[in-house]
Amino acid sequence: MDPLYTSYPLSIDNSLTGEKEAFVPVHEGNVGMYVCGPTVYSDVHLGNARTFTSFDMIFRYLKHLGYKVRYVRNITDAGHLENDADTGEDKIAKKARLEQIEPMEIVQRYTVDFHKVMDALNAFPPSIEPTATGHISEQIEMVQSILDKGWAYESNGSVYFDVTAYNANGGAYGILSGRKMDELQAGTRALDGQEEKRNPSDFALWKKASPSHIMRWPSPWSVGFPGWHLECSAMSTKYLGETFDIHGGGMDLKFPHHECEIAQNNACSEQKGARYWMHTNMLTLNGKRMSKSTGNTILPRELFSGDSPLLDKGFSPSVVRFFMMQAHYSSVLDFSNDALLAAEKGHDRLLSALEKLDTLDASKESTIGLEAWIDKCYQAMSDNFNTPILIAHLFEAIKWISSAESAIALSSADLSIFKAALHSFAFDLLGLRKKSLDAGDAHKDALDKAMSLVIELRAQARLNKDWGTADLIRDQLQEAGIKLKDGAEGTNYSL
Amino acid sequence: MDPLYTSYPLSIDNSLTGEKEAFVPVHEGNVGMYVCGPTVYSDVHLGNARTFTSFDMIFRYLKHLGYKVRYVRNITDAGHLENDADTGEDKIAKKARLEQIEPMEIVQRYTVDFHKVMDALNAFPPSIEPTATGHISEQIEMVQSILDKGWAYESNGSVYFDVTAYNANGGAYGILSGRKMDELQAGTRALDGQEEKRNPSDFALWKKASPSHIMRWPSPWSVGFPGWHLECSAMSTKYLGETFDIHGGGMDLKFPHHECEIAQNNACSEQKGARYWMHTNMLTLNGKRMSKSTGNTILPRELFSGDSPLLDKGFSPSVVRFFMMQAHYSSVLDFSNDALLAAEKGHDRLLSALEKLDTLDASKESTIGLEAWIDKCYQAMSDNFNTPILIAHLFEAIKWISSAESAIALSSADLSIFKAALHSFAFDLLGLRKKSLDAGDAHKDALDKAMSLVIELRAQARLNKDWGTADLIRDQLQEAGIKLKDGAEGTNYSL
Repeated sequence: MDPLYTSYPLSIDNSLTGEKEAFVPVHEGNVGMYVCGPTVYSDVHLGNARTFTSFDMIFRYLKHLGYKVRYVRNITDAGHLENDADTGEDKIAKKARLEQIEPMEIVQRYTVDFHKVMDALNAFPPSIEPTATGHISEQIEMVQSILDKGWAYESNGSVYFDVTAYNANGGAYGILSGRKMDELQAGTRALDGQEEKRNPSDFALWKKASPSHIMRWPSPWSVGFPGWHLECSAMSTKYLGETFDIHGGGMDLKFPHHECEIAQNNACSEQKGARYWMHTNMLTLNGKRMSKSTGNTILPRELFSGDSPLLDKGFSPSVVRFFMMQAHYSSVLDFSNDALLAAEKGHDRLLSALEKLDTLDASKESTIGLEAWIDKCYQAMSDNFNTPILIAHLFEAIKWISSAESAIALSSADLSIFKAALHSFAFDLLGLRKKSLDAGDAHKDALDKAMSLVIELRAQARLNKDWGTADLIRDQLQEAGIKLKDGAEGTNYSL
Repeated sequence: MDPLYTSYPLSIDNSLTGEKEAFVPVHEGNVGMYVCGPTVYSDVHLGNARTFTSFDMIFRYLKHLGYKVRYVRNITDAGHLENDADTGEDKIAKKARLEQIEPMEIVQRYTVDFHKVMDALNAFPPSIEPTATGHISEQIEMVQSILDKGWAYESNGSVYFDVTAYNANGGAYGILSGRKMDELQAGTRALDGQEEKRNPSDFALWKKASPSHIMRWPSPWSVGFPGWHLECSAMSTKYLGETFDIHGGGMDLKFPHHECEIAQNNACSEQKGARYWMHTNMLTLNGKRMSKSTGNTILPRELFSGDSPLLDKGFSPSVVRFFMMQAHYSSVLDFSNDALLAAEKGHDRLLSALEKLDTLDASKESTIGLEAWIDKCYQAMSDNFNTPILIAHLFEAIKWISSAESAIALSSADLSIFKAALHSFAFDLLGLRKKSLDAGDAHKDALDKAMSLVIELRAQARLNKDWGTADLIRDQLQEAGIKLKDGAEGTNYSL
């Protein structure tokens, strides 16, 4: 059987060209995808969680289409400088000194937290999750290679990428962001270390460590650390090759990070690293930019627990994921209590309908065109991963189920196909979870209430000397492994 | 208030000296502990899971005593050679070629699985979890430092530790394992690459990569990879200093791995890396050594699920942890279906008693000597982490609770202390979990049964025209958020 991607060929909005393009992988049937992962010096930002959830959906759909996918998402555990001009100290090392602990303790704490959040959001681990500190020698080799080409220079133990020389020799720095050289020059600030650069738009490949800098490695130029942009170039090349299929990240990384990555990769390989660049859009909270200083901010775990003045209640990770999927990954998404409440209703309606599906009886013939519906769903997903359109189609199907007793009928074969398709779209592709994570608690609550009713009925039966009912209750509870205990404070139960 | 470690000073069985010694940390109030972590090229072995669970208990108790603990447990993601003679190819790279995937994909898969198993066993993540591939430059620096001292030599692009020269100059290779030089010579096998060594007992610090070797890094001697023993020396030194407090691992690592680590650390620093060496003992299955070839083997996840011909049923991770804690970490532990069933009974009895504790009423005066009992518990733990004795004391306390209505009485203040102490010992120190992981399912099952009883009582009430009872059931279920639905197949409920 042909893989699904031949029936539903994928098209992707390519940020590099600004065009929607047919997706043609480098190696037929295989996809290499690199996504810039989190910097693990603080809690993962909700915007980043959205980016990674979007690429999880993309990872799931690529695999569903029949591609063999190698999905690489890095952990930035060093080398993320404090500002765009690549000066100042490493963010992770700074936090470590403040808390008087080792930088790698910070890295560990926030890496564990990050994995918990992504696991709650039902995102698969990537195929490879490389760290910046785990690829120092690869980064040093890349710096050397760019120096050898003459597109970088050493200055006081640091090495800078020479944007002017690169562009004068056919390079295209600015190709992704569309910025012109004179804009780039004007846009940079006068900051510590800038005097080492030939031009303000040059960026660091390697930085000499100041005496107080904790995270440091030997190199041919100085004991220092790699520039932040370098790690992604080195790791994507190592695990996906010089040319690969998809490079993704949040829109805020387009410039300078991704622009610099492209320059570094092209400088080394004379080929573009990634063919398709994909960028997820920003999110806002109550219509405004998230900002810690104004208090207009929320963490993923606060969203789940409801522990925030901005929320009436917590929302299960599956509801949050559904909410994200209701918007296209390339659209701005506004989080708010009301929008999440509405999403929760939709999410629960969808999941109840899927449960109801199991109780539907098959008819002799089908009265709806199932194939056309499935086709529409795949068309939506293959059109640049259009999850909101897919969800609209799912709600169309819900209507059929809700009116199932009266309106539609499905043959036994179609009913199976319908169930499989709905499950596949809702759970495998959108990544919703059948039960909320606290389903256990919901059952416990309901059991408490049901048992207090049973205990009351038993007391009543005894009072009425209705021994038949009292015995029935006793026997059935015994069979169920539920014990009643009469005490001074009343009757309790235990399992 | 003085920290608890002053009231209950810790003593540790030190494998290095063979003595039980008073524990005195290098820096008062701080403990640095390094434990050799898993090699992530296959499922974590149950024996390793026991080792890491034991050190999790030790980590918990050290923190409980009031120490600030930095607990480093590495991930061996490269450089673990196929045999003791340090020749042959890296195990991870070999598996990768077999499966036609990138070595780091294997690493990622089994790292994720390993974390899942340890999380199920309620083990805290270590403070730092460094990887071998993340510390190549530190390892190269250490090789250089040993070469500079004259206690290693280069041979055909590889570098070997010169055991004879080291011991001739005051080194003590053999100090941990108690092996003599002539035994060491006799014990090695003639294997590929041995001809590069001056003496069979020499071990590799750096190995030149064969052309087919995938995982490779540049070095002053060759493009190659570090010897397996080196990573732990480099990472323990980096994160804990040249001299630190505790080094742990499974007993199988004593020789050659830990012996080589000590030699490497001493060669670099002229100090012993760790002061206290702790080794967890092996485990057997049905009285025999675990072995894949005979089928006498079981994985942690099979233990939890019961998916093994050797088990009648699955055991919750908390029961498995309790079972491990019932034996001292330095004793051989035999796993079997019957022993686990017995442990489950004990575990459940302990946890039920803890629940019952919440229902105990305080008396005017206490009839038991609580302080002496708490004292005994801490004495047990501070005596080389004696969890089986602690558990025996916990069962003594259970007896008090079980006979609470008749035998013992506790004042209100003592009752609080008793509850806090029991919770602390069972949950904080032994690391048991209040609910089994599938508590949600247990509640769901019980709810199903309770609701089928309620539905039957409702039907009976209606039949008897007992409208009072029928209304009571209707109202209370409504209040509980439980809906009944009468259908052709009978009555169902939903939340």
